[in-house]
Amino acid sequence: MAEPAQQQEGAPAGALDGIRVLDFSRIFAGPAATQILGDLGADIIKIEEPGTGDGARSFGVTEEAMARYGASPSYLALNRNKRSMVLDLRKPEARELAARMAAECDVVINNFRPGAMATFGLGYEQLKQANPGLIFCEFSAYGDSGPLSHLGANDVALQAHSGMMSITGEADGEPVRCGTAVIDLHASLALVSGILAALFHRQRTGQGQRVETSLLRSSAHLMNYFYTDYWLTGAIHKPMGTANHLSVPNQAFPAADGRVVIIAPADDMWKRCAAALDPERLDKPQFRTAFDRRRNRVELVAVLSEVTRALPSRVIVEKLGAAKVNVAKVHDVGEAADHAQLAAIGGVVAIGEGAGAIRSVSSPFALSATPARIDRPPPELDADQAAILDQFGIGQDERARLTQAGAFGAPA
Amino acid sequence: MAEPAQQQEGAPAGALDGIRVLDFSRIFAGPAATQILGDLGADIIKIEEPGTGDGARSFGVTEEAMARYGASPSYLALNRNKRSMVLDLRKPEARELAARMAAECDVVINNFRPGAMATFGLGYEQLKQANPGLIFCEFSAYGDSGPLSHLGANDVALQAHSGMMSITGEADGEPVRCGTAVIDLHASLALVSGILAALFHRQRTGQGQRVETSLLRSSAHLMNYFYTDYWLTGAIHKPMGTANHLSVPNQAFPAADGRVVIIAPADDMWKRCAAALDPERLDKPQFRTAFDRRRNRVELVAVLSEVTRALPSRVIVEKLGAAKVNVAKVHDVGEAADHAQLAAIGGVVAIGEGAGAIRSVSSPFALSATPARIDRPPPELDADQAAILDQFGIGQDERARLTQAGAFGAPA
Repeated sequence: MAEPAQQQEGAPAGALDGIRVLDFSRIFAGPAATQILGDLGADIIKIEEPGTGDGARSFGVTEEAMARYGASPSYLALNRNKRSMVLDLRKPEARELAARMAAECDVVINNFRPGAMATFGLGYEQLKQANPGLIFCEFSAYGDSGPLSHLGANDVALQAHSGMMSITGEADGEPVRCGTAVIDLHASLALVSGILAALFHRQRTGQGQRVETSLLRSSAHLMNYFYTDYWLTGAIHKPMGTANHLSVPNQAFPAADGRVVIIAPADDMWKRCAAALDPERLDKPQFRTAFDRRRNRVELVAVLSEVTRALPSRVIVEKLGAAKVNVAKVHDVGEAADHAQLAAIGGVVAIGEGAGAIRSVSSPFALSATPARIDRPPPELDADQAAILDQFGIGQDERARLTQAGAFGAPA
Repeated sequence: MAEPAQQQEGAPAGALDGIRVLDFSRIFAGPAATQILGDLGADIIKIEEPGTGDGARSFGVTEEAMARYGASPSYLALNRNKRSMVLDLRKPEARELAARMAAECDVVINNFRPGAMATFGLGYEQLKQANPGLIFCEFSAYGDSGPLSHLGANDVALQAHSGMMSITGEADGEPVRCGTAVIDLHASLALVSGILAALFHRQRTGQGQRVETSLLRSSAHLMNYFYTDYWLTGAIHKPMGTANHLSVPNQAFPAADGRVVIIAPADDMWKRCAAALDPERLDKPQFRTAFDRRRNRVELVAVLSEVTRALPSRVIVEKLGAAKVNVAKVHDVGEAADHAQLAAIGGVVAIGEGAGAIRSVSSPFALSATPARIDRPPPELDADQAAILDQFGIGQDERARLTQAGAFGAPA
C-alpha cells in the first residue's frame, strides 16, 4: 500500500506518494479533504470512534438503506482511498497510541471542537515536540478565537450566519438554503490548499506548521464580493430567484419543456443572443448596453420569456450555443449526474465491481504528470486495524494490552 | 516585492515566496485563485487586455460607481496582491513577449476557451520546451473534451447544468440560484489545490505539469453526495426551502425578530434542544430518534416554530448555544460582513488608508509559520508595466519597438 508505483527515474506516481495522513476528521469537510489527498497518492489513516464510527456513515439514511448499502451515500461519496481503524480516545492507551502514530505521520487533521485535541494530549504543541515537521490541521465551525468560537455549527448554520441564505430565494420570498453543503465542501478545498501550501513550505525548509480553517472562513470566502460591495457602498443584496444583480439577462427562462438559463452580460453577446432567437423582438435600442439592460430588466425578461417559452430547450441550447452565448439547461440531479459531459472529462470514478461498485465524483482538478489514483472503496468501520498496526510496528503483545485496555473499543 | 522578507535562517516568510505566476485569467475563478497565491507570497503578474482590462473591473457597476471606486466591488474583492500589465495578444510581438516571460515563470494560468493559448503560441506543449518545470493551468467551463467542451458558461449556467438549482428553492416552488457564485469560487480553490500539488511534486522531482479544471468539475464536486445517492438509490432530491433531507430539525425557524436556523441531527442534541426551549411541548416520544423526527417532520417543524416565534432571536441563540445545540441567526449581508467573529479570526483584511482603504475577505485558511502577506491593493489597469518589464530585463529599445508594434495596446 505504501509502496508507490515508480513511474520514471524515481518520480512518484502520485503527487503525494509517501505522505502519511492521520485523519481524525468526521462528517463532511475533513473527509472530503482527505479523500482528495488520497486521490493524490497520500496514505490516509481514518481514525473512527467505536460503535458508530464517522457520524456520516448513518447520516440521513433509512434503516433499510443502511442495511442494503452499508453506509450513507454521503459517507460513500467522500471516503474512498482511505483505511479505517477504531480508537476510543477516551482511553489513555488509545491516546498514547495515537500520539505514537502522529510522530510518524506528515499530516494530522481533526475537526473536534477547538482545544479538544490538546485535552487528549494530541494538540499541536504536544505533537510537534516529537515531530517538528508535522503539519497539524484544525477545522472548526467559527475558528478558535472570538465571541462565537465555543459554538458548534454545520453547513446550514453558516449559510444563515454568513448572509448566503439572505441572498438566496425568490425575489420578495423567504430566504432558502443552497441545496447542497457548499460551505462544508468549499472548506474541504481550503483544507487541501492549506495542507499543500504547508507541505511545499516544509519541502523547501523542513519547517512544519499549523493549518487552521473553519466553516466561517469558508463561508466568508464564498460571500467575499458581497461583503466588499457592502463595505464599499453599503449595498445589502436580496434574493433574486435565478437572477443576479451583475447583469441582464443572467437567469432561468421557461422553455416549452423545462427551463434554460441564458447569460449574456456583454453587449456583443446580447446582440448575438437577440439575433439567434428573435431579432425583431429582442434587438431593441432599450436593451443595447449593459446599463440599458439592467435599467430595463423587467421588460427584457418578459419579452425574452415569451420568445423562449415557444421553443424546446434543446433548440434554445443549440441556437445559443452556436452563437457563443452562455446557455444551459436546468437539469435535475439525475440528468446532471448521468450527463455524458461529466464522464467525458473523467469526472466520474467507479470503485469495486458489478453490483458492489460505488460511483463517486472525481477530485475537482486533474494533474497531467501525476494523475489521480483511485484504488480503494470507502472502508468498512475498523477494516484495516491489523494492517495499520503492522505499519506502525505495533507487535502482538502490545496489541493484546491495547485491546485489554479498551483502546480499540469495548474489549471483545 | 520580489524581495522576500527573511524570517529566520533563510526560511521564506511566505509559503510561496519566490514563486512567479503569469496570470492571464479573468473574471472570478482564476483571479480568486491567484489572489490566494499572492497572499501566500507568490509574485502575481496580471496580464490584461487593452482598454477594458479584466472584464470584472466593470461587472455589474453603474457608471457613477465606476467613476467613484475605479472598479467593481467584485474586482476589488479578488485582485489584491497582484501587479497589472496590458498586453494585446492579437499582436505577434505581444505573444512573443508573453512567451519570453512564461519561460521565467513557475506558473502560467489562463481561462481562455480550450485551445486559445495554443493558437497564441502559448500552449503548454509550446511553453514547456523552454521551461520544462512550468506548471501550466487551464480553467474552462466544461473541460477540454466531450460534447459540451466548445460551450462557454458561467457560474449560474453550471448551477443549472449541475442540478444545484434543482435542489435549491422553496418546496414545490421554482428552482432558484444560490445567491453567490459558489461554483466559480469553489473552482478557485480547486485551481489553488492543483497548483500547490504540482509545485510540491516539482519540488520533489523537478517535473512540471499541466493542471486542468473547469466549472463542471467544481460543480460536480459540490454536488457529489447527491450524485452518489442518485447512482446508488435513484433518488432525485428536490428543493426543501431551508431544510434538507438528512435530518430534522435542520432549517430556519421564525423568531420574534427575524429567523434562526436550528440543527439537531443527533438524538442527544435534540433532547438538549427540547430541554432548553420547551420540554413539555418538544420532548415527545414521536420525536425521540432521528428516524422518528424524519418521519414526523411536519409536526415537529410546526410545534418548534410555535415555540421559537415567541422568543427573540438573541434568546434562542443564547439558550441553544449554551445547550450545545447548533444554532445561528439568519443574517443579512451587512450583519454578516460586520459580525465581530469574522474580524476576530482575521477574516477581514484592509489595504490602503482612510477613505481609500479597500476591505476584503482573507484567504480561507491560515498558516501559523507562513502567515498571509497582504501588501498591495488591487492594481489599476497597466499600473506596473515599467516594473514588470524591468524585472524581465526588457530594455528601452525593445520597449520602444513593442510599443510601436502595439503590443501594449494602441500606440500612444
